[in-house]
Amino acid sequence: MTELNSEQDINLHPQNEVGVVVQQLTGAEGEEQAEMFSDILEEAEPGTVALLLEALPLDERYERWQQVQFADRVEVLSLMRADPRMGILRQMPDSEVDLLFAQLSPEDLIEWSDYLPESYTDRALAQMGERQRQHFELYNQYDENEIGRYADHQMLVLSTKATVGQAQRFFRRIDLDCNDNLFLVDEQEHYQGTVRRHDVFRHGPEQPLASLLSEDSRALSADASLLEAAEALEHSREVELPVVDYEGGLIGRVTLRTATALVREHYEAQLMATAGMDESHDLFAPILKGARRRAVWLGINLLTAFLASATIGLFENVLAQVVALAVLMPIVASMGGIAGSQSLTLMIRGMAMGQISGGNLMSLMKNELGIGAVNGLLWALVIGAVASWWFNDSVIGIAIACAILINMLVAAAAGVAIPMLLQKFNQDAALSGSVILTTVTDVVGFFTFLGLATLLFL
Amino acid sequence: MTELNSEQDINLHPQNEVGVVVQQLTGAEGEEQAEMFSDILEEAEPGTVALLLEALPLDERYERWQQVQFADRVEVLSLMRADPRMGILRQMPDSEVDLLFAQLSPEDLIEWSDYLPESYTDRALAQMGERQRQHFELYNQYDENEIGRYADHQMLVLSTKATVGQAQRFFRRIDLDCNDNLFLVDEQEHYQGTVRRHDVFRHGPEQPLASLLSEDSRALSADASLLEAAEALEHSREVELPVVDYEGGLIGRVTLRTATALVREHYEAQLMATAGMDESHDLFAPILKGARRRAVWLGINLLTAFLASATIGLFENVLAQVVALAVLMPIVASMGGIAGSQSLTLMIRGMAMGQISGGNLMSLMKNELGIGAVNGLLWALVIGAVASWWFNDSVIGIAIACAILINMLVAAAAGVAIPMLLQKFNQDAALSGSVILTTVTDVVGFFTFLGLATLLFL
Repeated sequence: MTELNSEQDINLHPQNEVGVVVQQLTGAEGEEQAEMFSDILEEAEPGTVALLLEALPLDERYERWQQVQFADRVEVLSLMRADPRMGILRQMPDSEVDLLFAQLSPEDLIEWSDYLPESYTDRALAQMGERQRQHFELYNQYDENEIGRYADHQMLVLSTKATVGQAQRFFRRIDLDCNDNLFLVDEQEHYQGTVRRHDVFRHGPEQPLASLLSEDSRALSADASLLEAAEALEHSREVELPVVDYEGGLIGRVTLRTATALVREHYEAQLMATAGMDESHDLFAPILKGARRRAVWLGINLLTAFLASATIGLFENVLAQVVALAVLMPIVASMGGIAGSQSLTLMIRGMAMGQISGGNLMSLMKNELGIGAVNGLLWALVIGAVASWWFNDSVIGIAIACAILINMLVAAAAGVAIPMLLQKFNQDAALSGSVILTTVTDVVGFFTFLGLATLLFL
Repeated sequence: MTELNSEQDINLHPQNEVGVVVQQLTGAEGEEQAEMFSDILEEAEPGTVALLLEALPLDERYERWQQVQFADRVEVLSLMRADPRMGILRQMPDSEVDLLFAQLSPEDLIEWSDYLPESYTDRALAQMGERQRQHFELYNQYDENEIGRYADHQMLVLSTKATVGQAQRFFRRIDLDCNDNLFLVDEQEHYQGTVRRHDVFRHGPEQPLASLLSEDSRALSADASLLEAAEALEHSREVELPVVDYEGGLIGRVTLRTATALVREHYEAQLMATAGMDESHDLFAPILKGARRRAVWLGINLLTAFLASATIGLFENVLAQVVALAVLMPIVASMGGIAGSQSLTLMIRGMAMGQISGGNLMSLMKNELGIGAVNGLLWALVIGAVASWWFNDSVIGIAIACAILINMLVAAAAGVAIPMLLQKFNQDAALSGSVILTTVTDVVGFFTFLGLATLLFL
């Protein structure tokens, strides 16, 4: 996206542009790259600069970072993911870090502090004035899953006793992002309702503002979850909603822009969680650090793989006599794993929207088992027939067909039950759901297949 | 989220509320459920009603749907996912469907038509006036990946010759969602720039409007991708951006609210794609329909599982002599699969943001191979030691250690290369990336492990 100077400039592809610039920038080196980047800095949005820096390997990234104007640095860093941001902070001289922290708003610091070592947060707080520190403390009461943490103070607030004229002056003077509303509070700063800008400019200045209170004045509770709040904003007709604490005190507002960012971050986090990583992960993590972070997930999966191996180990006798079983084993496990992940994914999506509860769980279970039975029968027949023909042995075909059917039914049941159990224990189903599921389908798959084979062959 | 009648009502949990209501509603039956639902209908937002209907099993869903007031039906259906929406349409009598279609805006129909059988789209078009049909055709030129398709006409447009006074009257009279701007066009309806509402109310009515043109008047190109457009809106300071065709003609606008929905749908689609399903999927699909849709994905995975089996089949000799190999096989495949999916997930996230290109691909490859080497060595040693001890045979330990190291390096390379290759052929890496990756890591894992064992044992 660039500025519009003439009609020819209108055809713009903001993100392709990121792609193209990444291509040029990463293709260049040294001086050439530095010059190219300083041209980019003149035109690009801070969000684009953040994306570009993340796309550079670590050594080049810090060199280019030093070209970013001091006035833009806080915004660019705020728009980067947490790991690359921290990487840059660590490379900066202490004096520069302090200068940077002095420019940080309480809202910025809250976002940064989710991933910032405490010593850095303390240094940043030391740079803040008393009032800003109070704002920080206000938001910092709420944890990372509560919308109160991500509220901001960029809002228009007036007393219930104010007039329309005061509101008009307010709206004329102050120009905030996503600002369509004015929030009214009583003397205790308790939220009393919303007045819309559109109404303010349609009435005379003498009229009491309270007479324009919007009929559906809504507020978000500060302890509502991020996704709840984003959902509420998306489905409301507002671009900003007030956030109130449990006593009704107005602590800030959340905008539709924040909601978009929260939705993106939620799903990015979920995507990364499926591979045991988190949303802060740097595209170019330092090798040892990256390896260490990923090792945990590999270790957990290794334990479950050993469980599967141990299950196979129970059946060494039959495996020694019928090698075909070893050849076919992965098919039973794989079909169960895929079928289970389909049920699990549907559950995770529904749970994110609050659509699944004790009330419809049994209906869901029946439905998934029905689908599992149909696909189980279909693929049991197909795989049984292929296996019989391949090894010219119908007993093998019968064993694998039965194992497939049983495993796909178990997979459906596990795909529904596991995320519900994880939710009960406050665990993230996107992170641990698939490991547990695969363990179940591997163990059940190997056990039924090799167990049936033992019964039939030995 | 409910309306604010008194201070006690302020503490609201919109989505928990969905969860609670789902619980109550799905727990009730027949008459009781009907009464409960009619109470809900009086207070709830259309978005909440849509979520609730989706959470009901098919028979109950249609009964409750019939309670929804006619005036709200289009909005509720528009906010549902495509499959449940289509399910309801199919159950409705023809006469009711036509009445419903008569209320549909061109923008609604565009969204519905992505998943609507053509006969339904034609029926809906037959209910529209000439002008609405033209709007539909305008948006329908763009395909499902282009933002032009999802633009809307709810915008304020004036000629470059208009005055500030005209703009003020416009803003006072018309109350649109996410409306902060006024777009100026020339006589050919070509976009000329943006005037901000804030500026309009700070100047005298006689002044020419063109003198207030915003310095950074941006436009989205109608063929920009949905994610590009959402990104541009999120990182701009606007709540709406104009959309122009390749000649610069103003065809509509996109709001931040639309952007939030597009981001959510993009990631939901990606989440569902990891299990071979699509975003339209109904929580309660009819069993045969649900089974058929999922069968395709199971079939594709079965083919890859047979490939893995065929690889194992090459080594029947060594397997017949050393049963321990069959027991340990899944570990080699599993570790490769997990390591590869970590690289793949990082790539998919980066590619969605346009951060990966030919320029940084080699640096990324080096980085991922470095991480793969570190974790490969670590886990090769651990697994080799455990295997040697378990089977009291150091040759088995050596074979599995080498296979793990090789497979994890291959996994890292494949995790980087596969999504880039898929992108070249315009394939969705979220959908097919993990199948191809698992095939590679399974085949390579089994081949190296059993191949090394053949060399060492036979």
